[in-house]
Amino acid sequence: MTMSRESYLECIVAIPKPNYNPPFNITRASHSVLHVKDLAKSRAFYVDLIGLIVSDEDKDTIYLRGVAEACHHSLVLKRAGAPQSERIGMRCFTEEDLEKARHYFAKAGLPAQWVERPYQGRTLHVSDPLGVPLEFCATMTLKPRLLVTFEKHHGAVPHRIDHFQVLVPDVQRELEFYTGLGFRLSEYIAADGSDDPLFVFLQRKGNPHDIVFAPGSGPRLHHAAFSIPESYHFFYVCDLASNLGFAENIEYGPGRHGPGLALFIYMRDPDGHRIELFNTHYQCMDIEDEPVRWDASVAGKRRWQLPARAMWFAEASRFAGVEPREPAHNGNPMTLERYVGAAR
Amino acid sequence: MTMSRESYLECIVAIPKPNYNPPFNITRASHSVLHVKDLAKSRAFYVDLIGLIVSDEDKDTIYLRGVAEACHHSLVLKRAGAPQSERIGMRCFTEEDLEKARHYFAKAGLPAQWVERPYQGRTLHVSDPLGVPLEFCATMTLKPRLLVTFEKHHGAVPHRIDHFQVLVPDVQRELEFYTGLGFRLSEYIAADGSDDPLFVFLQRKGNPHDIVFAPGSGPRLHHAAFSIPESYHFFYVCDLASNLGFAENIEYGPGRHGPGLALFIYMRDPDGHRIELFNTHYQCMDIEDEPVRWDASVAGKRRWQLPARAMWFAEASRFAGVEPREPAHNGNPMTLERYVGAAR
Amino acid sequence: MTMSRESYLECIVAIPKPNYNPPFNITRASHSVLHVKDLAKSRAFYVDLIGLIVSDEDKDTIYLRGVAEACHHSLVLKRAGAPQSERIGMRCFTEEDLEKARHYFAKAGLPAQWVERPYQGRTLHVSDPLGVPLEFCATMTLKPRLLVTFEKHHGAVPHRIDHFQVLVPDVQRELEFYTGLGFRLSEYIAADGSDDPLFVFLQRKGNPHDIVFAPGSGPRLHHAAFSIPESYHFFYVCDLASNLGFAENIEYGPGRHGPGLALFIYMRDPDGHRIELFNTHYQCMDIEDEPVRWDASVAGKRRWQLPARAMWFAEASRFAGVEPREPAHNGNPMTLERYVGAAR
Amino acid sequence: MTMSRESYLECIVAIPKPNYNPPFNITRASHSVLHVKDLAKSRAFYVDLIGLIVSDEDKDTIYLRGVAEACHHSLVLKRAGAPQSERIGMRCFTEEDLEKARHYFAKAGLPAQWVERPYQGRTLHVSDPLGVPLEFCATMTLKPRLLVTFEKHHGAVPHRIDHFQVLVPDVQRELEFYTGLGFRLSEYIAADGSDDPLFVFLQRKGNPHDIVFAPGSGPRLHHAAFSIPESYHFFYVCDLASNLGFAENIEYGPGRHGPGLALFIYMRDPDGHRIELFNTHYQCMDIEDEPVRWDASVAGKRRWQLPARAMWFAEASRFAGVEPREPAHNGNPMTLERYVGAAR
Repeated sequence: MTMSRESYLECIVAIPKPNYNPPFNITRASHSVLHVKDLAKSRAFYVDLIGLIVSDEDKDTIYLRGVAEACHHSLVLKRAGAPQSERIGMRCFTEEDLEKARHYFAKAGLPAQWVERPYQGRTLHVSDPLGVPLEFCATMTLKPRLLVTFEKHHGAVPHRIDHFQVLVPDVQRELEFYTGLGFRLSEYIAADGSDDPLFVFLQRKGNPHDIVFAPGSGPRLHHAAFSIPESYHFFYVCDLASNLGFAENIEYGPGRHGPGLALFIYMRDPDGHRIELFNTHYQCMDIEDEPVRWDASVAGKRRWQLPARAMWFAEASRFAGVEPREPAHNGNPMTLERYVGAAR
Repeated sequence: MTMSRESYLECIVAIPKPNYNPPFNITRASHSVLHVKDLAKSRAFYVDLIGLIVSDEDKDTIYLRGVAEACHHSLVLKRAGAPQSERIGMRCFTEEDLEKARHYFAKAGLPAQWVERPYQGRTLHVSDPLGVPLEFCATMTLKPRLLVTFEKHHGAVPHRIDHFQVLVPDVQRELEFYTGLGFRLSEYIAADGSDDPLFVFLQRKGNPHDIVFAPGSGPRLHHAAFSIPESYHFFYVCDLASNLGFAENIEYGPGRHGPGLALFIYMRDPDGHRIELFNTHYQCMDIEDEPVRWDASVAGKRRWQLPARAMWFAEASRFAGVEPREPAHNGNPMTLERYVGAAR
Repeated sequence: MTMSRESYLECIVAIPKPNYNPPFNITRASHSVLHVKDLAKSRAFYVDLIGLIVSDEDKDTIYLRGVAEACHHSLVLKRAGAPQSERIGMRCFTEEDLEKARHYFAKAGLPAQWVERPYQGRTLHVSDPLGVPLEFCATMTLKPRLLVTFEKHHGAVPHRIDHFQVLVPDVQRELEFYTGLGFRLSEYIAADGSDDPLFVFLQRKGNPHDIVFAPGSGPRLHHAAFSIPESYHFFYVCDLASNLGFAENIEYGPGRHGPGLALFIYMRDPDGHRIELFNTHYQCMDIEDEPVRWDASVAGKRRWQLPARAMWFAEASRFAGVEPREPAHNGNPMTLERYVGAAR
Repeated sequence: MTMSRESYLECIVAIPKPNYNPPFNITRASHSVLHVKDLAKSRAFYVDLIGLIVSDEDKDTIYLRGVAEACHHSLVLKRAGAPQSERIGMRCFTEEDLEKARHYFAKAGLPAQWVERPYQGRTLHVSDPLGVPLEFCATMTLKPRLLVTFEKHHGAVPHRIDHFQVLVPDVQRELEFYTGLGFRLSEYIAADGSDDPLFVFLQRKGNPHDIVFAPGSGPRLHHAAFSIPESYHFFYVCDLASNLGFAENIEYGPGRHGPGLALFIYMRDPDGHRIELFNTHYQCMDIEDEPVRWDASVAGKRRWQLPARAMWFAEASRFAGVEPREPAHNGNPMTLERYVGAAR
């Protein structure tokens, strides 16, 4: 499935060294903030179908969390005129880490600004070098963990947010930047016979993903992923989707990933924002763990019979106020679709 | 999902009345006999992947059963030059029922001939009016039921054979013939606004299926179905298929049926014979149970997102020595594919 | 697990021959009627916890069915001063079978009386030779089958009634009587080295159970069983029970049966009536199927570590108006508990 | 389930503050080393029943890992005359952390010694203040992660080691020591109305457990726990245990924990060493997460019906060369059993 160790060492030149002394401590993917046109429709999707728990809501905003989460929210839905992704959120461990983050971004000439956000401690808004709008906070209001409050479990019974996937025009640039922030590369896809990482899985929290960068017109948010451990619920949520009028929202799956190794379903919410439901991930936190390399032709092969749809590759949510750019690779854009398409 | 009771009564003219005093007692779908080109490859598929239990085998034949079956076999694989379906088997309850069956078929001018088959009691070969080759027997050699012999469970852990689906050029003719034999119609699909049953689910054993007739060039065996109760195993068998080199053999699914209501996966064996794995069925044995009618446009809608592939409609196993005929319906063949295709 | 075929044939003298031409056609276990003291409490148990569907209810009665049932009810709860079992219900296939049943019971000098019961066709009340009060009907009002109405699935998602277990002072007598009615013996427990059937599993519908007789002071209803196919729901219903205040009502399990082979949980309702939740059963309808014999010492061994509680053996629901009698077996009552107790 | 925030703050005096700048970086529970009398019997238990993967073995030692582990081993079995626990292993992140650990233990007057162990990087043997023998290493030989190598999955399909539970005569002492090493308290049990932590769950890796200390004669190893995410496998492993002659080795469960919230089964290996199989844990890594307090009377209540057996409280594996001491608490030993026993 992976190349030999020798080939691996040859090709590793494009893979930056891990940074074990990061400038500040990001601990995990935290939350995403989405603009939606009709809160009632979004609530029907995220609460009645998916089973996320409402932590708070008013006429303009719904704050949601998974049943295993004690933090206030891992998804924020805001009523807005256009369906966009506002920001993706990361946790820093301490307030001191937030201060260090502000200095780091400012020094790098990148936007960094303090804001107040409900139910979050002091919050820092930054943008990465390709313009992905991030927000960092160190704390949130605590809510009860409903992991064994079985009478409130519903739909897919999502446990917690796991990761984001973002389309960007320059994956190598993001790989270098996030490695500098202490992210470790768990897996990556490279074009067959090439050293260039095409698709990178980066993590801080000790399992394979916190943020994934894939090649494409961007930055655009491809999806936020929530974990569901029990395979039974993959079927149940599809069945329930069909009954509740969301059959068309099941975009891809159930199926089994190549990279990442998990079961998955991708669904589109009423505004077209994509979420992934997937099952539990392997632990990776030892220093000897090496990034797993996949040839694009292998990674793109369906493990079962089900091919990804074209729209799964092409469509994603724009970030508010950020104009996507096309990948520019010597006039030869290496999109995953191209390589994966070739592999079939 | 179903039409109103009034519409139902209007359209029921094409549906023959059940026959509660059948000429002889068929109890259930029993077994199928398939010709395969390479027994070793077929064994890898049916035993190593699917998990059927080998009851007996020699260089020319493999006899297989599910883990919940005490009968000797529900699938017989014979080495042969061409991949065909030899016959489908039904159980009659007693030897006396077999005698009655012989008289019934002879009187109807249909083939009926005694044969000897290993591990089966006296066996009767007949053909139905459209040429489907059947074999009836009343007993088989007993084998241990391995339902709780968990150390021998493997793959999808198939419990037992459930039903057959056969493509025929004249579904109405088969509906009338099998109703005459005491089969009850559990569900059927009719063209929207029409009374003609397009696709019929017939049963003797008290759940929805023993034999299903669908419109198409035939008679050809579309599939034999085996039951697997646990949804976990639907994923496991796909994963195992992928690892054992059978990814391409997963034809359709996992998904949820409209008619029949079950979870399903369709797989093609190394010779292209199709099997269905599906989960447990509802009981239907009360006299007040009415056939459930589905409009073709509704039945053909995918319940999840996954469309059936064209080959799922078009391809099937020929019966040995039986030339398929095309449906002839006033030059306007009502194939399911046509209606279902229109529904998407 | 079972004795050798030779030993089996030796001991079979106490086992009556099956009757393949029964005096009338009973098709299956149908429903039970229970007296309960507080309908609201019972509803909390059967609907909010177990997940049975309410077909109809008024201030005195609740009619319940499983999600896979199209018949109106498989459990009737009636408000009453004392928690008793009123009757257990069986289905006859036709109205004509009901007539034949009335003649048969009358001729045998047993009670047989026509009554009217809501949502049931003409209903016959009879008592068997040991006084078990039965009711037969051929039809019920039809209700929608909710098998894929996933948004109404709840708790254990019980599919359908499967069987009853009744404690009686003379198992041999019941075995002979019900065999005469066409019931087939699927499995039985005999005292080690003895021919006397101690515990008998009898069926009409083609899987191992419709009615089970076990030795003890009786007749008393030990339990009615509902089928749940997915093992996930065994855990879920225990978890939900604990959260909804019913932890003490989980009496025994989850565990795996010896005879019958299924996963099980036994629960006591708020009045102490017992239900079993168990998973799907093997098909047994072929004429060559032999009753499976279990030595009491083997049958009584726990398959996992969990021993049955004393109350599981001792406690059961009285039938209204029927005084239980003690088993009288030469002053040496062969209760299962005695043999099973010895086996540990 | 937990006390109010006010009560919590009152009682927190006995709970030491977390140390976010630990003297060296322990990342996770890593492995345990057990002495067993008969390697073949142990292999039958751990490999044929539980489904751990053999990384290496010779006539004296077997190295095992879970299917999701890329590290060489999480369980080492050594042939020896007496069944004891040799050591429990923890991972430090870097070689530099190992050096810091050596200094830390030496300065504290505790044993600390470099050793060589096969398939591990440089290894440090230390003992904690109560004599628990630990070994730290920063690296192991890498092995393939078999998470999607489904054809090698077997038994309970254990994913990875999760935590240890150790009985000690002074839980408070261990709580203070391990908090000093940077462990965070995720949950704890306190005697009703008391501030003394009776039972403490400590973690480094971001879920509730790496090491748990419970009161009792010790130090003794109560169990090592392996994670299995799918509830289906809880039943399957019990069924398989029964068939493979290990029914008596199922000690407690399947059941649902109070503290920790997971499904569990406890099994005893052929030498009496205990393992826990349990399902996936919630993430806890945010700075605002507070330790969850449980009253002993609540924590000890069975969530389902199943009580823990006396031996589950009383029996544990001695550490090689370490004489257990009894808890001495003003002549009033607060064992969990005493409080839990009282709660029933």
